[in-house]
Amino acid sequence: MKDSDTKKISAAVVKRLPIYRRHLKDLMDAGIYRISSKELSLRMKTTSSQIRQDLNQFGTFGQQGYGYNVRYLYDEICGILGLKEKHNTIIIGTSATIRALISKHNLLGRESFPVVGVFDTNRINIGEKLDGYVINDLKDLKELLKETNVDIAIVELSKNEVKSVINELIENGIKEILNISDTDLRYSPDIHIENINLSDALLRLSFHSSARKREENI
Amino acid sequence: MKDSDTKKISAAVVKRLPIYRRHLKDLMDAGIYRISSKELSLRMKTTSSQIRQDLNQFGTFGQQGYGYNVRYLYDEICGILGLKEKHNTIIIGTSATIRALISKHNLLGRESFPVVGVFDTNRINIGEKLDGYVINDLKDLKELLKETNVDIAIVELSKNEVKSVINELIENGIKEILNISDTDLRYSPDIHIENINLSDALLRLSFHSSARKREENI
Repeated sequence: MKDSDTKKISAAVVKRLPIYRRHLKDLMDAGIYRISSKELSLRMKTTSSQIRQDLNQFGTFGQQGYGYNVRYLYDEICGILGLKEKHNTIIIGTSATIRALISKHNLLGRESFPVVGVFDTNRINIGEKLDGYVINDLKDLKELLKETNVDIAIVELSKNEVKSVINELIENGIKEILNISDTDLRYSPDIHIENINLSDALLRLSFHSSARKREENI
Repeated sequence: MKDSDTKKISAAVVKRLPIYRRHLKDLMDAGIYRISSKELSLRMKTTSSQIRQDLNQFGTFGQQGYGYNVRYLYDEICGILGLKEKHNTIIIGTSATIRALISKHNLLGRESFPVVGVFDTNRINIGEKLDGYVINDLKDLKELLKETNVDIAIVELSKNEVKSVINELIENGIKEILNISDTDLRYSPDIHIENINLSDALLRLSFHSSARKREENI
């Protein structure tokens, strides 16, 4: 991947990269060594030209008449996704959702995403442990940020707390934030916030459920 | 909302509706009774013409020179989102994420989203309770679907199980699915699947973290 190209990658392509990775992983697990862009596109419910277009932004991976080498492409996409580097990660909030995320997640806490700090605002939790990590008082966050380079923050706090904490993170140079709080935060384009909101997803489904029932009654 | 308009609402608008709802709720909680589209757009980091365009698809809500009545608009958007109807909901899988979702979620299990069945494939959990609901064997799903009209299914299963279960749901006429499993499923446009995937969100952040570090080193 050329350095100069970094900025041009669209959000839509970035969104598809983890999906490519997952499908390639499934193929590897199924013992499939090579795949045509046509076959891959059928699996991903997209078009082969979409796949070629996406991948061309990062280099040349397929060969005319051969298709893609599954393991090689998987490996390259892991590299593009930054999985061969370390991204120091902090966790702010120690609620059930975060606990579930940590226990379920096969990447967090491993090589690519070392957890360098866990914080909470709830006094009851401070000093306790979360999956082996001591839970610190959020007041001590500044100190950690001075000493340690933090790349990614995972945040789940109450609506009243979350905004000021995320502002503090941004002031301290953190640009990659996974927000699981029940609020939707938007910042300038150089700050990457992934808002994961289960309530919103449920509301979109209820919109569709409602529309469907209305149609069925016509 | 006109019945005939239902189909024309774009995914982008549907995505923004829950966000409007949340902002209007915050305004109500702050005791604000009316707001101009300009002020609302600043809060939502969007444009006032975007807001007007979105809302115009459902009716006329604002008044020139007055702006929006916050409570009225909130109420209307709740209606558009289907929150004044019942959407029978089933839960398949009883993992930590689903447990966190249920305990955190202030809509699930209430009037709009009554939980009419909880299922799992893991024998250890069957017969136990999840937030007061008895956990049933997934084998009994067919029977429930015969007796009860189900609108929304929330699913978190292992990669090996999830696809066949979702196929079964679709075969039985369920069209609204919230998939929290670590896999990404796509179907025809009349099936609404919300894939919530924390791993993918983390990978997008590591992509940006990696790109940023590369840029900073230039």
